[in-house]
Amino acid sequence: MPEQISYFAASAKFADGSDTPRDFLERCIGSIEAGDGELKAFVATNYAAARAAADLATARWKSGKPLSALDGMPIGIKDIMETADMATEQGSALFPGWQGNRDCAAVAALREAGAVIVGKTVTTEFAATHPGVTRNPWDKSRTPGGSSSGSAAAVGAGMLPAALGTQVIGSTIRPASFCGIFGYKPSVGGINRGGSFDGFSQSCTGTLASTLAETWVTAREMSARAGGDPGYVGILGPRLLPAATKPAKLALLDTDGWEKASPGARAELGRAVEALRAAGVAISDRRQDAKIEAVEKALAGAMPLAMKINAWEGRWPLNTYKRDMDPTKLSQSALDRLTQAEAMSQDEYRILIAERQRVRETFAALKADYAACITLTASGAAPVGLGWTGDPTYAVPSSLLGVPAVSLPVLKDEGLPLGLQLMGFVNEDAALFATAGGVLAVLG
Amino acid sequence: MPEQISYFAASAKFADGSDTPRDFLERCIGSIEAGDGELKAFVATNYAAARAAADLATARWKSGKPLSALDGMPIGIKDIMETADMATEQGSALFPGWQGNRDCAAVAALREAGAVIVGKTVTTEFAATHPGVTRNPWDKSRTPGGSSSGSAAAVGAGMLPAALGTQVIGSTIRPASFCGIFGYKPSVGGINRGGSFDGFSQSCTGTLASTLAETWVTAREMSARAGGDPGYVGILGPRLLPAATKPAKLALLDTDGWEKASPGARAELGRAVEALRAAGVAISDRRQDAKIEAVEKALAGAMPLAMKINAWEGRWPLNTYKRDMDPTKLSQSALDRLTQAEAMSQDEYRILIAERQRVRETFAALKADYAACITLTASGAAPVGLGWTGDPTYAVPSSLLGVPAVSLPVLKDEGLPLGLQLMGFVNEDAALFATAGGVLAVLG
Repeated sequence: MPEQISYFAASAKFADGSDTPRDFLERCIGSIEAGDGELKAFVATNYAAARAAADLATARWKSGKPLSALDGMPIGIKDIMETADMATEQGSALFPGWQGNRDCAAVAALREAGAVIVGKTVTTEFAATHPGVTRNPWDKSRTPGGSSSGSAAAVGAGMLPAALGTQVIGSTIRPASFCGIFGYKPSVGGINRGGSFDGFSQSCTGTLASTLAETWVTAREMSARAGGDPGYVGILGPRLLPAATKPAKLALLDTDGWEKASPGARAELGRAVEALRAAGVAISDRRQDAKIEAVEKALAGAMPLAMKINAWEGRWPLNTYKRDMDPTKLSQSALDRLTQAEAMSQDEYRILIAERQRVRETFAALKADYAACITLTASGAAPVGLGWTGDPTYAVPSSLLGVPAVSLPVLKDEGLPLGLQLMGFVNEDAALFATAGGVLAVLG
Repeated sequence: MPEQISYFAASAKFADGSDTPRDFLERCIGSIEAGDGELKAFVATNYAAARAAADLATARWKSGKPLSALDGMPIGIKDIMETADMATEQGSALFPGWQGNRDCAAVAALREAGAVIVGKTVTTEFAATHPGVTRNPWDKSRTPGGSSSGSAAAVGAGMLPAALGTQVIGSTIRPASFCGIFGYKPSVGGINRGGSFDGFSQSCTGTLASTLAETWVTAREMSARAGGDPGYVGILGPRLLPAATKPAKLALLDTDGWEKASPGARAELGRAVEALRAAGVAISDRRQDAKIEAVEKALAGAMPLAMKINAWEGRWPLNTYKRDMDPTKLSQSALDRLTQAEAMSQDEYRILIAERQRVRETFAALKADYAACITLTASGAAPVGLGWTGDPTYAVPSSLLGVPAVSLPVLKDEGLPLGLQLMGFVNEDAALFATAGGVLAVLG
């Protein structure tokens, strides 16, 4: 079983010099060199730049002046996001070696916080469905999930303490579930996407990490420097992990996923709910609360609704890639999405986003009564094979709703990791992490 | 005095073959070749591709099957927007010859509508304040305005019937005013900005054209194909110019600009107001309506508020350009904006956008009583010299508010063009054009 590594656990020793950011980085590089030939989490690495950055961080910690809690933390960047010192290939055969020579906003913020950019991690093509080559660190015959495949696998394998993902359907929390790590998809607009090839209206940059604290702090430090998407304030709250709060009341959601959930996953969720109840957390579901029933009904079509919205929004750039570049280098699924988009109209899209807005308003009514919603992150353990990144039915609601979601690696299925998902309310990300801490204290 | 050229006037003759898109294009190329050495509106042209596209359009018109009213229309693209067949230099010394090899969403849509992309037009650096080399076609010693300098000059000089601009402060309607043409800044989110290096929350792609009809149709055909920004439905309404409607009531706004307005500009606006009143249009101002007074007060700080919002949102990519590229190739004004941004915090930005939202709500209250607001587009004729693109005080309100604005070339100052501005309400762009047609019928 792979063991994950925590930078925050190590950084406690930086002050007395018994560990250093450079030593931590060398252990990461050692793991990557030893394991990535088989795991295939990385598209590119830049060890020289990482070592130089780690040495600067080592000096800052030594002098008692780290730039942030992330100072010196090795991190992986999903290869949909621009980095000044490495290519950005988008998991696409159209962009081998493509170099923008600049950092995306999130990476620029990470560097300002002192983080050490180690490498670019494998993404599915354009962060959509066509899979990459990465394997699951818990079972190499299985998918790590997608689209943030390499980021999740690298953290799950203990090669890095944290990595960046993006999510428009299920691309951050699903791979977190499959790889046995924490995953966080912020409120829509939460982290500035400038320089990330990710323009969908419900997509969001997020974090994958070995601990809840690193999941939060990595995201929060980015938003503090780069802000949210233009027009959005971004993630607010304390710079360090919000204090754990045992929630008074949670709403249990089945969503469309329940019928697909494995017997093991269903039983695990049931056990988690019972443990929380035993600890004094009230948990209601659709049978007890008409508001939850209304949410379940509103979310019943979440997957096709989200897919249609994404199809229209993804018409560009697929149309120019097909016409102006080499169409033989686009996957069949990309070509199919373009065909679907080209059959749609602006007026259809108008109706789709109005429907999404109605679903969001229905969901928001839960805020008066519940600290968060609780459900599975995925319908079971990572599926066998690398041709399919797994079912995203449990992950799509938070994407459609634009609400923050956290996956906690506290469940098991087939002896492999499975995530417990908490969904919060728009721009209440810090409160969600407080609740997540409280849930983790009971279940972890 | 330069004469503008209308494609729609010419296309009436395409059916009988007495004129053709290719002939129209050749006249444009002739004008560009004759005049652009001095005017300097273009950064690049691609006549070969334009001629090939015009020939296809010629054949479609001949067979009675044009793709749209824009089929074959020569158009210029502000050099902040990606084009597959030309470089995109952003008016910056950092990006000479930079080639993304793809079309931005708006240009892809134009090509689908049959439009002929003739060239890239000069923009100020990053579509901000540092001026380009373009001159005003009405007086070569004066600025054409900015940041859509080349687009406005090329249309004003009669080299093209239409061109694309962008506006985050005053970059579309101000140069339209200075160059004696129509300018249109849509409702925020109105035209998909994918592939345009323009990520500000209140920025919008817009059109500059020789007639009101071409201004509308060019924008509308883009939104029909590319949609609005992701999450926005985009401009809706008829594909052709909405029928002119004489407005019952207009709100006259002075804005902060009045104290800067030249005597000639004040007198011209007064004459326009009187002519409209004589035609039966009721016009109220702050002295007659407390709601208008509230809007004037809310807009009193529009310029610094918009500049601060833009500063925070523009931190990236200026930070990575300065750190990861050659900082000596950034203008002093770009470096100054970065310094301003780096002194700001996420929390300040939170307060700024909340304030903007309050201003927007105050303005929206006018919708119940008025068809549109009427004011100047600029405080006077284009200023002499190329070092400053002119005062944007009259243009900033519609940008801050996110509402559609149209500039009509019906006023004069110093014997040079001056725009009359109409501002409408969010997503009511078609209604604004109907009103604009009604106003033009009285004043034009």
